[in-house]
Formats: sequence, C-alpha cells, structure tokens
Amino acid sequence: MKIELKEQERLDELHRNGYRIIQNSSRFCFGMDAVLLSGYATVKEGETALDLGTGNGIIPILLEAKTKGKHFTGLEIQEESADMARRSVALNGLDEKIKIITGDIKEAGEMFEAASFDVITSNPPYMIGQHGLVNPDSPKAIARHELLCTLEDIIRASARLLCTGGRFYLVHRPFRLAEIMTMLVSYRLEPKRMRLVYPFVDKEPNMVLIEALRGGNSRIRVEKPLIVYKEPGVYTDEIYDIYGY
Amino acid sequence: MKIELKEQERLDELHRNGYRIIQNSSRFCFGMDAVLLSGYATVKEGETALDLGTGNGIIPILLEAKTKGKHFTGLEIQEESADMARRSVALNGLDEKIKIITGDIKEAGEMFEAASFDVITSNPPYMIGQHGLVNPDSPKAIARHELLCTLEDIIRASARLLCTGGRFYLVHRPFRLAEIMTMLVSYRLEPKRMRLVYPFVDKEPNMVLIEALRGGNSRIRVEKPLIVYKEPGVYTDEIYDIYGY
Repeated sequence: MKIELKEQERLDELHRNGYRIIQNSSRFCFGMDAVLLSGYATVKEGETALDLGTGNGIIPILLEAKTKGKHFTGLEIQEESADMARRSVALNGLDEKIKIITGDIKEAGEMFEAASFDVITSNPPYMIGQHGLVNPDSPKAIARHELLCTLEDIIRASARLLCTGGRFYLVHRPFRLAEIMTMLVSYRLEPKRMRLVYPFVDKEPNMVLIEALRGGNSRIRVEKPLIVYKEPGVYTDEIYDIYGY
Repeated sequence: MKIELKEQERLDELHRNGYRIIQNSSRFCFGMDAVLLSGYATVKEGETALDLGTGNGIIPILLEAKTKGKHFTGLEIQEESADMARRSVALNGLDEKIKIITGDIKEAGEMFEAASFDVITSNPPYMIGQHGLVNPDSPKAIARHELLCTLEDIIRASARLLCTGGRFYLVHRPFRLAEIMTMLVSYRLEPKRMRLVYPFVDKEPNMVLIEALRGGNSRIRVEKPLIVYKEPGVYTDEIYDIYGY
C-alpha cells in the first residue's frame, strides 16, 4: 500500500512479521522500554488488550506480532501521535486487529465498558510534574513528564477496565518502585511478577517491568535480572531475542 | 575470659575484631542474610541501634564491629537465644556496648521510649503462618515463621521507636516485596534504598535488603545486583568482603 509520510517522519523496520512503524524524531520515538514491555506482557489467544498512552502505536503493533491476542486498542491523547499510529496500523494491514483512539487516560474509565479488557499495558511518562522542563507543551515533554496524566490516573483506569484476573503490565523507572507497588495494591492490582533491567551487570537498574493481577493475592515473583549489554555496544542474547534480530 | 558452652553449643569465628559467637545448631544458626544485613545497614558515629528479633545476637555484634555506633540493643523473645546472645556479648567484652533484652516485639513500642533509636534492624521470620510446619513450637520454627510476630508488628514497632530521619533496615524474601513496600509506606517508613541478592547472575533473587527512612519522601534508589556466587562454591569478591575474609 501507498505510504504517506509527513514532514520529518521516517519509516522504521520492526523485525517482526515484516512490520514497519512511522516515527517522527521531532516528537517522540519509541525506546527500548516499549520493546521490553511488549516482550514482558503476555496476551493469550482470544484475549483483548488496551495500551494506555500508546504514542505512535508501537506496543499494540508489537503485541499483535508477538501474541495470539484477538484485538488490541491503543489510547493516545496527542492527535498527531494517534494519527501516526493509525497510519502505521493501516500500513501493516492491521485495521481489523488494532484500533487507535484519540482520548484522555483520565476519561478512559468512562470511555470503555468496565472490566472489558483482559490485558492493559502502559509505558507512561516517567517524570513527576514539570521538574526541569523548558518547554512543557512539547510532544516530548508530554510523553516523558506527568503533565497530562499521572501514574495514579493510569492505575485507576486500569483497575476499572480490567476483568477480574486480568493483567496489567507496566514499564517504569525504579526510583518510583515503592510508589508503584503501593498504588497498585491500593487499587487491588496485586503485583505478581517484577523484573529489573540493568544496563550492565554491575550497574543500577534503569527500568522495571511489572505484572499485576486484578484481584490477586499478595505474593510476587521477582525474576532474574535482565541485563542489556554484555559489553559496551553489544547486547546480551536475551535483548537480541526480544528485539527479534 | 572463661567460656561457658552448654550442651550442643559451639563457638564460631566472626572474622571481625577477633569476635566469636555462640551458636546452637539444634536451635537456629545465623545465615548469610544476617551478615548481608549487617553490611547493608549504616550506623553512624554516636548513633544508637536496636535489632528486633536478634536471636543469638549476631547483628548487634557484627554492627558493633563494623560501625562507630554508640550503643546497640537486641530484643529477643526466646530466653535461651537471648541467653546465648548475652554470653557472646560478654565473651567479646561488649557489655558496655550491647544490651540484650528478653521481650516480645509486639510490646516493643511500650518497652522503649518513642523515637529513641537512630537505627532499627531486623532479620525477621520470612514465612507466613504455620504453612508446612510439623513442629510449630520449635525454636527454628519461631525464627523462620511468623508465629510470634508478623511483619506488621516489626514495622509498627520500628515506626514508633525510630526518631524522625531514623533508618530501618530489613532483610527479607523477595516474594513479599509488594507487601513490605506497602506496609512500610503505610507506617511512614519510606523505602529509600533496595538491593536484590541473586545467588547467581542468571537466577532469581532469594533475598532483598531494604533501607527505609522515618518520614522520607517517595523516591527509592534500586541498587546494583548483589551476586553471591561467581561459580558454584566460589563467592564473588563483594561477598568475601562483606564476610571479612
């Protein structure tokens, strides 16, 4: 099909099913966190999944490629990002499998039927408030800072929209771990699995992957470390595997 | 000084200051968790520290050797363990520095003055209730299972007995991490540092070390992995260093 790229947009390979994705480096390009989250989340055959703050649609597109899920929805507040996501979905022939909706996570609880998803994923803004921001209206600032939604907005919406036994998958920064755990538990999304991502084996982790269960009991499995580099510039085998190289 | 060893007791070297400790393998001998906790906890010059559930006194004795703390108290509910601890304290000539008290953690909040310690440590029972227990009255069962005190009893007592800005150090099993975080935050002991202990670099962690601050803000530093073995039977350099070999 004919690809319509707007100014400053480029087309990147996803190394899965021949899929490609439209990106715009003046806005926000997906990072390793989105790829790792798509490798961490489980979507079983026939299940439906929702991605909160989907950006250019990287997570639903990768999950469609990697899983047997029935249908994927991406919610994005920035219309230009949602538009890119929709064109990427069409470009990969996925209009029947993935729906991109422009909308606000704070209103997601009313936008969809309660308990209507099996899986919810989110790669949300990591930073609190406007700290250190020069240009708080920029698309990158909105993707990185909690300007238009907070962690609690995401967790509240997820708790409402997940069916009982449904699974919530989050990638975030470790410095907010205590807050994440506390907030998940307070919304009865019980943390069941956690994996820390360490850039090198002797460095502090810079990402955390979490699976929480709607209505689970209190017992978490902390998994083996996910190490990104075996030496500078060379990924570990596991990272290559997640990327699909 | 003359050492009085009772039946089934033995004397072990601690590789610190020439200190030794009385152990009884029919009761409960200290493990790597106590040693790692003593390496993780910071006790600054002039500070006072309390160890909740001190067993044979391993943690106050190691902390006295490793830090410049002014005074150390160990609270232990089992009189025979407390008696062993007292004899070890005397044996090492530490009667002025370490006091062992026989008592119940559930009553610790009334036993000591509120906000009277700078540091509290605990290597508590890890297992919930009597699950899988044949002999719930045995000293080992009491040390390993939450029979006489729960995690909440320990955290409640610590929140009451720590001064503002005081530090709580816990070693525990990772499977209870979400519960630990949630409970600490609910008692305003804010988790500030966390380190996971992995037996091998490619295995799940089997211990977690946590530092919480009485009245801190919500931001945690997740530290680099602590790996125990570099190959089967051979500790990593960091473990040898913590043990003082």
